[in-house]
Amino acid sequence: MPHVTEIKVRGYHLDLYGHVNNARYLEFLEEARWGVFEETGNLDAFVSHGFGFSVVNININYRRPAFMGEVLEIETSLASLGNRSGKIHQAVRLKGSATPVADADVTFVVVDAQEGKALPMEGELRDLLQGMA
Amino acid sequence: MPHVTEIKVRGYHLDLYGHVNNARYLEFLEEARWGVFEETGNLDAFVSHGFGFSVVNININYRRPAFMGEVLEIETSLASLGNRSGKIHQAVRLKGSATPVADADVTFVVVDAQEGKALPMEGELRDLLQGMA
Amino acid sequence: MPHVTEIKVRGYHLDLYGHVNNARYLEFLEEARWGVFEETGNLDAFVSHGFGFSVVNININYRRPAFMGEVLEIETSLASLGNRSGKIHQAVRLKGSATPVADADVTFVVVDAQEGKALPMEGELRDLLQGMA
Amino acid sequence: MPHVTEIKVRGYHLDLYGHVNNARYLEFLEEARWGVFEETGNLDAFVSHGFGFSVVNININYRRPAFMGEVLEIETSLASLGNRSGKIHQAVRLKGSATPVADADVTFVVVDAQEGKALPMEGELRDLLQGMA
Repeated sequence: MPHVTEIKVRGYHLDLYGHVNNARYLEFLEEARWGVFEETGNLDAFVSHGFGFSVVNININYRRPAFMGEVLEIETSLASLGNRSGKIHQAVRLKGSATPVADADVTFVVVDAQEGKALPMEGELRDLLQGMA
Repeated sequence: MPHVTEIKVRGYHLDLYGHVNNARYLEFLEEARWGVFEETGNLDAFVSHGFGFSVVNININYRRPAFMGEVLEIETSLASLGNRSGKIHQAVRLKGSATPVADADVTFVVVDAQEGKALPMEGELRDLLQGMA
Repeated sequence: MPHVTEIKVRGYHLDLYGHVNNARYLEFLEEARWGVFEETGNLDAFVSHGFGFSVVNININYRRPAFMGEVLEIETSLASLGNRSGKIHQAVRLKGSATPVADADVTFVVVDAQEGKALPMEGELRDLLQGMA
Repeated sequence: MPHVTEIKVRGYHLDLYGHVNNARYLEFLEEARWGVFEETGNLDAFVSHGFGFSVVNININYRRPAFMGEVLEIETSLASLGNRSGKIHQAVRLKGSATPVADADVTFVVVDAQEGKALPMEGELRDLLQGMA
């Protein structure tokens, strides 16, 4: 079941055009991912196992500007899990509506925090990540 | 000919991992695009014609973390120009080396600042944008 | 009665030292002020009267670094209201403890959004602001 | 002799009001301080001695909004050096004019990076810092 994070658009999120700035969405998406990690218990497990989460690609569509005072809902779910990498899908909508604001695919690998090497997505690591789906 | 922007990595660009944060790269890319717009004279022309530049997709690969004190070079060029949208390619490298740090395709439309409608990429607008190539 | 805003420290809030970055606190304080403005109904009233809120000084003490995963509570209250300017006090603490993380005095004026002139703190404007105390 | 850092105001620096956002100035000031640290050779010396620079107070006046495309000059100088703390003064002006945009006093201590204790401002540390004046 997807996880939902709410963020209200404030004056400091905006830019020249009075819209939430492109870069700021990536902070919103990161905020939502941390929330899911906590909610599913993955954050503690990752830390205790010395797993590091490393984003290798973000593909984000900006579909409709977001304005001051609007409340955004970010839905985060695990879209796919390969042998070496996984993909998280995040959809940003106006709260309580189907109006899409942005959506992104976030491709990640998990690295051994000590050696910095990408780990195969198997065993306990795979189980942990599937708990996010 | 591509345009190059230099940014030095500072303490406030980093995050939890001691790497430049994902979202910050989008500011670096925006900084580079503003620089190219100015250099090519497009910025004044866009403002005087009431053209607005609107990013609809960013597809960014994070290839190698960037650390405190490193100098990044961002190479920005127009990759393609369709009838309704264009694509800018931006490559981030360690200065004076071929080491890729990140690269991104930035897809944009140009809107009429008054009406907010996407404009066809023709006539003077097309000429202006091709000046970025 | 003071208003309290909660913010959880995430990876993208940190800097070189693994602490919440100095600049980021000013976003946290702004977030808290927007919250109070909404809660007290001042936000709508300000917009409808064409009042603009303009910060002229921030004096912030950084008392203890904040780390990943900590929950901060920001207490916001109107400290004083003069004829031309007012002062908001904001205290940042670890949630559920008395441990001070930062505190700030934020001095502001209210400007006529049309003419950009500072307004005297009297009449309805004064009443609105005192509703924040 | 004071050190000067130039920053051009871009679209992503602005906020709701079309002005450079309050928090962003603290990044501009930090950018300028890193520049001075490098220029004076203090950065390498600090790192090699295990000195950490820790800001304990920022008192910033916002005097005039800065707008898109303006070039800011930040002048940074050591204002005073006590036994336990020092104060850096930073003045932000429009380039090539005397128009003040903002100014700040930044009070700092130097900590032993291992133990996190504030160091007395004496001996080699004092010499290094006075090199910034």
